[in-house]
Amino acid sequence: MTTILLVNGPNLNLLGERNPAVYGTTTLLDIEADVAAAANARGASVLCFQSNHEGALIDFLHEQRKLADGVVINAGGHTHTSVALRDAIEAIQIPAVEVHISNTHARDEFRRISLIAPVCLGQVTGLGRAGYTAAVNLLLDHLEAAAKA
Amino acid sequence: MTTILLVNGPNLNLLGERNPAVYGTTTLLDIEADVAAAANARGASVLCFQSNHEGALIDFLHEQRKLADGVVINAGGHTHTSVALRDAIEAIQIPAVEVHISNTHARDEFRRISLIAPVCLGQVTGLGRAGYTAAVNLLLDHLEAAAKA
Amino acid sequence: MTTILLVNGPNLNLLGERNPAVYGTTTLLDIEADVAAAANARGASVLCFQSNHEGALIDFLHEQRKLADGVVINAGGHTHTSVALRDAIEAIQIPAVEVHISNTHARDEFRRISLIAPVCLGQVTGLGRAGYTAAVNLLLDHLEAAAKA
Amino acid sequence: MTTILLVNGPNLNLLGERNPAVYGTTTLLDIEADVAAAANARGASVLCFQSNHEGALIDFLHEQRKLADGVVINAGGHTHTSVALRDAIEAIQIPAVEVHISNTHARDEFRRISLIAPVCLGQVTGLGRAGYTAAVNLLLDHLEAAAKA
Amino acid sequence: MTTILLVNGPNLNLLGERNPAVYGTTTLLDIEADVAAAANARGASVLCFQSNHEGALIDFLHEQRKLADGVVINAGGHTHTSVALRDAIEAIQIPAVEVHISNTHARDEFRRISLIAPVCLGQVTGLGRAGYTAAVNLLLDHLEAAAKA
Amino acid sequence: MTTILLVNGPNLNLLGERNPAVYGTTTLLDIEADVAAAANARGASVLCFQSNHEGALIDFLHEQRKLADGVVINAGGHTHTSVALRDAIEAIQIPAVEVHISNTHARDEFRRISLIAPVCLGQVTGLGRAGYTAAVNLLLDHLEAAAKA
Amino acid sequence: MTTILLVNGPNLNLLGERNPAVYGTTTLLDIEADVAAAANARGASVLCFQSNHEGALIDFLHEQRKLADGVVINAGGHTHTSVALRDAIEAIQIPAVEVHISNTHARDEFRRISLIAPVCLGQVTGLGRAGYTAAVNLLLDHLEAAAKA
Amino acid sequence: MTTILLVNGPNLNLLGERNPAVYGTTTLLDIEADVAAAANARGASVLCFQSNHEGALIDFLHEQRKLADGVVINAGGHTHTSVALRDAIEAIQIPAVEVHISNTHARDEFRRISLIAPVCLGQVTGLGRAGYTAAVNLLLDHLEAAAKA
Amino acid sequence: MTTILLVNGPNLNLLGERNPAVYGTTTLLDIEADVAAAANARGASVLCFQSNHEGALIDFLHEQRKLADGVVINAGGHTHTSVALRDAIEAIQIPAVEVHISNTHARDEFRRISLIAPVCLGQVTGLGRAGYTAAVNLLLDHLEAAAKA
Amino acid sequence: MTTILLVNGPNLNLLGERNPAVYGTTTLLDIEADVAAAANARGASVLCFQSNHEGALIDFLHEQRKLADGVVINAGGHTHTSVALRDAIEAIQIPAVEVHISNTHARDEFRRISLIAPVCLGQVTGLGRAGYTAAVNLLLDHLEAAAKA
Amino acid sequence: MTTILLVNGPNLNLLGERNPAVYGTTTLLDIEADVAAAANARGASVLCFQSNHEGALIDFLHEQRKLADGVVINAGGHTHTSVALRDAIEAIQIPAVEVHISNTHARDEFRRISLIAPVCLGQVTGLGRAGYTAAVNLLLDHLEAAAKA
Amino acid sequence: MTTILLVNGPNLNLLGERNPAVYGTTTLLDIEADVAAAANARGASVLCFQSNHEGALIDFLHEQRKLADGVVINAGGHTHTSVALRDAIEAIQIPAVEVHISNTHARDEFRRISLIAPVCLGQVTGLGRAGYTAAVNLLLDHLEAAAKA
Repeated sequence: MTTILLVNGPNLNLLGERNPAVYGTTTLLDIEADVAAAANARGASVLCFQSNHEGALIDFLHEQRKLADGVVINAGGHTHTSVALRDAIEAIQIPAVEVHISNTHARDEFRRISLIAPVCLGQVTGLGRAGYTAAVNLLLDHLEAAAKA
Repeated sequence: MTTILLVNGPNLNLLGERNPAVYGTTTLLDIEADVAAAANARGASVLCFQSNHEGALIDFLHEQRKLADGVVINAGGHTHTSVALRDAIEAIQIPAVEVHISNTHARDEFRRISLIAPVCLGQVTGLGRAGYTAAVNLLLDHLEAAAKA
Repeated sequence: MTTILLVNGPNLNLLGERNPAVYGTTTLLDIEADVAAAANARGASVLCFQSNHEGALIDFLHEQRKLADGVVINAGGHTHTSVALRDAIEAIQIPAVEVHISNTHARDEFRRISLIAPVCLGQVTGLGRAGYTAAVNLLLDHLEAAAKA
Repeated sequence: MTTILLVNGPNLNLLGERNPAVYGTTTLLDIEADVAAAANARGASVLCFQSNHEGALIDFLHEQRKLADGVVINAGGHTHTSVALRDAIEAIQIPAVEVHISNTHARDEFRRISLIAPVCLGQVTGLGRAGYTAAVNLLLDHLEAAAKA
Repeated sequence: MTTILLVNGPNLNLLGERNPAVYGTTTLLDIEADVAAAANARGASVLCFQSNHEGALIDFLHEQRKLADGVVINAGGHTHTSVALRDAIEAIQIPAVEVHISNTHARDEFRRISLIAPVCLGQVTGLGRAGYTAAVNLLLDHLEAAAKA
Repeated sequence: MTTILLVNGPNLNLLGERNPAVYGTTTLLDIEADVAAAANARGASVLCFQSNHEGALIDFLHEQRKLADGVVINAGGHTHTSVALRDAIEAIQIPAVEVHISNTHARDEFRRISLIAPVCLGQVTGLGRAGYTAAVNLLLDHLEAAAKA
Repeated sequence: MTTILLVNGPNLNLLGERNPAVYGTTTLLDIEADVAAAANARGASVLCFQSNHEGALIDFLHEQRKLADGVVINAGGHTHTSVALRDAIEAIQIPAVEVHISNTHARDEFRRISLIAPVCLGQVTGLGRAGYTAAVNLLLDHLEAAAKA
Repeated sequence: MTTILLVNGPNLNLLGERNPAVYGTTTLLDIEADVAAAANARGASVLCFQSNHEGALIDFLHEQRKLADGVVINAGGHTHTSVALRDAIEAIQIPAVEVHISNTHARDEFRRISLIAPVCLGQVTGLGRAGYTAAVNLLLDHLEAAAKA
Repeated sequence: MTTILLVNGPNLNLLGERNPAVYGTTTLLDIEADVAAAANARGASVLCFQSNHEGALIDFLHEQRKLADGVVINAGGHTHTSVALRDAIEAIQIPAVEVHISNTHARDEFRRISLIAPVCLGQVTGLGRAGYTAAVNLLLDHLEAAAKA
Repeated sequence: MTTILLVNGPNLNLLGERNPAVYGTTTLLDIEADVAAAANARGASVLCFQSNHEGALIDFLHEQRKLADGVVINAGGHTHTSVALRDAIEAIQIPAVEVHISNTHARDEFRRISLIAPVCLGQVTGLGRAGYTAAVNLLLDHLEAAAKA
Repeated sequence: MTTILLVNGPNLNLLGERNPAVYGTTTLLDIEADVAAAANARGASVLCFQSNHEGALIDFLHEQRKLADGVVINAGGHTHTSVALRDAIEAIQIPAVEVHISNTHARDEFRRISLIAPVCLGQVTGLGRAGYTAAVNLLLDHLEAAAKA
Repeated sequence: MTTILLVNGPNLNLLGERNPAVYGTTTLLDIEADVAAAANARGASVLCFQSNHEGALIDFLHEQRKLADGVVINAGGHTHTSVALRDAIEAIQIPAVEVHISNTHARDEFRRISLIAPVCLGQVTGLGRAGYTAAVNLLLDHLEAAAKA
């Protein structure tokens, strides 16, 4: 059975509570349920993990590297600063898709470059909650295509 | 009825023929069919346009601005150089989603920044043919949510 | 008879419709009428041209180069990106004045530098509709002074 | 009665004497007379001030802030270096138009950026003596339009 | 009762032991006692936390976000590198004051910019042990003023 | 008796009048009274000086250099541009503390670096009126500690 | 039969007329005749195209991609700004040689880098009319060598 | 007895498994054994530590600071981003030697600068497994020389 | 009779008192006497001026421009920041030689570039008190050579 | 008789031996023979020189400056670093053409800028062995045209 | 028999004499003896060369390229400026190890980047005299491993 | 007896012949005679050396280091590129004064920074032939003052 890791980085645990006028009332649990439902519908399972610790995110990726088939990751603020997390994604040799809820290109200058993007298949940014579901579906498409090839 | 503009910029007309070992044999027609099918399945129609002329892309966006509800755009090489196209997307005040077939973050340094991204809702990059379908679905989700609000 | 080219670049055809709360309801036609009236009052005629195509703007400048005495140009987004348009203005050897409706210095960082300014006599920026009339009058002053010299 | 401040910064007192082959024989007095005539013709008065002292320019703007309705300013070399003068223009909350006699974009690299421009309505550059008259007229247009709104 | 979080980042646990000739013999405990005394004198309590783990600092801010009224933070080396910690301070929507014992502007070039400063009320830097007491008093002033408003 | 110089640079004379909704109605006189009161309470006197002239600020520092024991300085816009003022502070060899009312790190990019900070003991920024009182107290702490050492 | 595309970009249609003291009286027709003669002498034919439109240049390259064996291109001002044209040259997978009449390294700073050069075989710059003939001969040498290999 | 800390940062726990064609089958255990053997042969002991957590690396250095005589450190991805780890190495005042298995100068641009190098004695990079043994020997040489001095 | 202006900018009035261990006990009066003696010995007179006010330095240069034959200037901190002073030196069209007592190239990075140097004949830096005498002699050499030519 | 200097810089003596799969088996002798043949065919002679010593290249250019009519130069690695060689080419006032065998624009970033190009007539790059012959022919064309003018 | 080239660049001939308090009394002869002893102990021989001439260093590498099996190189100041030397190391296709006596990362900013490092196997920096011995041993390890593979 | 080394770098051997309209007819021999005369007049001797070889300049400085008391150096184009020459000047621990005939600040951007200046006492630039005499006199002043101290 295909297993997807859904990895969320720092501050994403506060989703839903923070600025509801802007971000809506979607919580991380809602997103995890969305992703699980989308994966289950295609016969895949999802393992969810959130941490504010860069090291814990790396440990999780390492530990699951033999069990998982793909990664959907929103690295939060680490996106722009963590070479260590980038190296972890590259090291485990599992296809990954990067997601961001907000349009990182329309915010601070330092948010325009992702250190993680070059070691992922691709990115979905600025499309809110639905971006996660899209990411997992795109990742499953990729895995199915690779399985056939 | 909801109408989506599918806009492809320079060199995307060569898809499918160029480097099949790398890009596969998907053509722009295939992508346009994918997007149309995805939109039709949700009761929306798609108007497709491709041009290698920056001015023609701007003209098309202007002409359709009263008829269209959303834009899916892959601006090709103009992504990184065209302030005029960026201004056109901003001026027509219609939600847009940017798509790129390849992972622009893993190529030349000058491809890392999109001038267009800050005036779009978001971006889907590096996820191949399927990225377009995801983009149109995400755009329709956004339009439906906005219609309800 | 003195002939002035009034050249407007990409997206300026949408003036008046876009963001009326901000830009007012002045249209490009109004501006063209203003400039023509100001020129006519001093015995000069105006030839107006707008295009969203960089190449069309260059073609127009080339074609009129033997017939025209001066240029008033708002190159829109091409201001910051078009070496080709800059070269065209320099090549035709006709005095030009650059105009911008908005204060380009108070917007995006990349709007602060004009590639076109160094090959023009000067610039009028941030002064709205009236900036065009000022530009044509300043250009006519220049031409009259040059004619006397 | 509408009162306009005409403020000229360092070295502008030498106009007319310096490089007559290039700058002509126009003096600062000529320019001040031009601006006064243009303003008077529209029922406005002008208060002229020139100083080579950044502090004196700031003091003048502060002292006149309750009496004046608009500012025409050529800050000379301070244009590119004075945050203090920029802050003064912003602090007095009176509309200002920046003028430069020469085309600052076609000279030294460090003259391309004006620290003052972002807190002004706009700029008139490179159009010589006539640029001042244009500036005061554009400012009066703006004040009249604002008075009506 | 007003509650202040006193948060110290990496290496601040070594205060007092390291380079006593330079930093004196003040320990982190001394500083925590100072801050508590200053807060208690104004009827406020202080919750102290130090960690060398970025993630632990973020977790602590998240956990206390409903209980605390203000934050005094010295993020140590994270000041210049942690987008995640910056996002945490912004997310919890509690007023924060940044403190540094040494004059960060007079050391390495990379210490001149704080990523955290833009999401704090302000900064106290270079003023040693006393800077912390000043910070907590300034924060309490702010909270009292806000309570009145 | 300990004497403190309270030096305020360009535009700070307008405090209280400018943008009362943002800055409150505190005037420079209020701040000078605050600082004097805080100093007097500890047996020190304060000499206040404000000027919009960089040269006058330097002259004042020079003239008082044998009489004063410390400096509290808000150099306004000169903070980011004046090497001359920086050199003056360094030359007089009197401990100085830099103050800013607003959070200079959360405004324009060019306000993030202070040329003056490296020659001061430290900085208090973003903490409004109270920041001045804190600065004078921190300076007096420093002077008392130095007197004991 | 070997077919070479001779592609000239914006403003090259004005050759011969513009600044004859500097550029001589060679016209684009002369250059096209030179190149054709050089190619014919080696049994190859030349298809000439000039446009001021970036899009038209791309279209032409696309349309001829199955018919042509090599490209000699002077992209004019697009040399320094057009990612789209670069991508077109790369996409058609035909060997190209870049030519410039003037020494682009001895002019404006922004003319020193060619976006197009990395996807060409090489460049001939600064050698006037004769540079084109050299380019076509070098290209034919390359094609002959490749045919043998 | 001389004690050396062998500290390995993020992702080094995966050595031997990752890309064996490139990195060989050496594991971190092999390296730790190498270093221990080299140290033991000279009468020194080694304490090994690996973590993917920046904070844990700092804690370890702090805890061992009174027991250890030297540090051999490969900070992995933290090398290029961690001011906190740099400060920790500097704070504990124990001589350190930095090691990298790969030639960091021949990879991504951002890997060329080490934040940690300036607070170490020196660096051994690009020399694989043997680089660690060299580092510990060089460190012991240094300690022996310092002991004699 | 040849007249030389000796112009000293901010903080140079403190020479001799500041850091005697480093700068020696030479005062500005000593330097002015040196320069006068050197000039007198060659039949020239010297007019000395020092100010901490940029504007006063500009005023002085303007006022003396018809009376003076050459300028020796040490602009102090204004060297690196004053476009206005640079413009003044250029405007008065009198040969100038720049002097600095210390080796500005061996201090802060921002002291390496002089805005004033490009409009002077040359520079004498880092050679202390004697540099002034050298400068006036070199200037007189230049004036004598020019008088002969 | 026209004399051309053929100057090759560091490492070009290894041509033909190094990487034959890439560079072919052409040696420097072959290239020197090519260039001599091409020159002889037009009645010109060639003097060949290769050195790995920057100073020897400069000496050679100096020594031959009265005897030579033109220079074909491939400065190897000195292209990007030698101001001294650039100055030598400029000083001898003989027309020069720069050649590079490989496409320097498609290699390391630091190879994109030639310090030498601005003082040459032009450049031929990326066209292999044939580029030298083209360069000498282009240079002879130039000399013949100059002789006629 | 394995032959190692020990290459030392400019100023390394002064070792031992220069700043003995800092660098000790080790001379280049001592280092050459160390390296020879280390190599001999493993059955390899060493050929030593030092020059202050970039060209002589390149010549030496070229001349020995067929006789040598490895290179230990300290290029001195050429490390940061010589593309020609870098190209020589790459061209001779012999494994090289770079050595620096001092910690180049803790000195001038321009010493942080080595142009030579990317074409070497690796670097040993900051470890003094012993760094050379380590380098030759690491190089011999590499050669032995390569011989086995 | 005091001995001064007069060192001239690349291309200075061509002085007098090159561009006499600009540089005059002064030759390097004239300058060497000037410097010798000036030194002899004060009881010092001069040893002159010119080379176009960086290595030869370094060798000369090394060889004379025990015999010489001071250095006057014009490093020509090496001024801006040679770390090796800078290190040589620093290594020999003899006071040096840098000279340039032309005003290097008013030429190419890359000539504004001297790598050599920070290790010299100071610089004399832009003052032609006389600058050398000034430099040797300033150096002798320095040596005499140092001898007294």
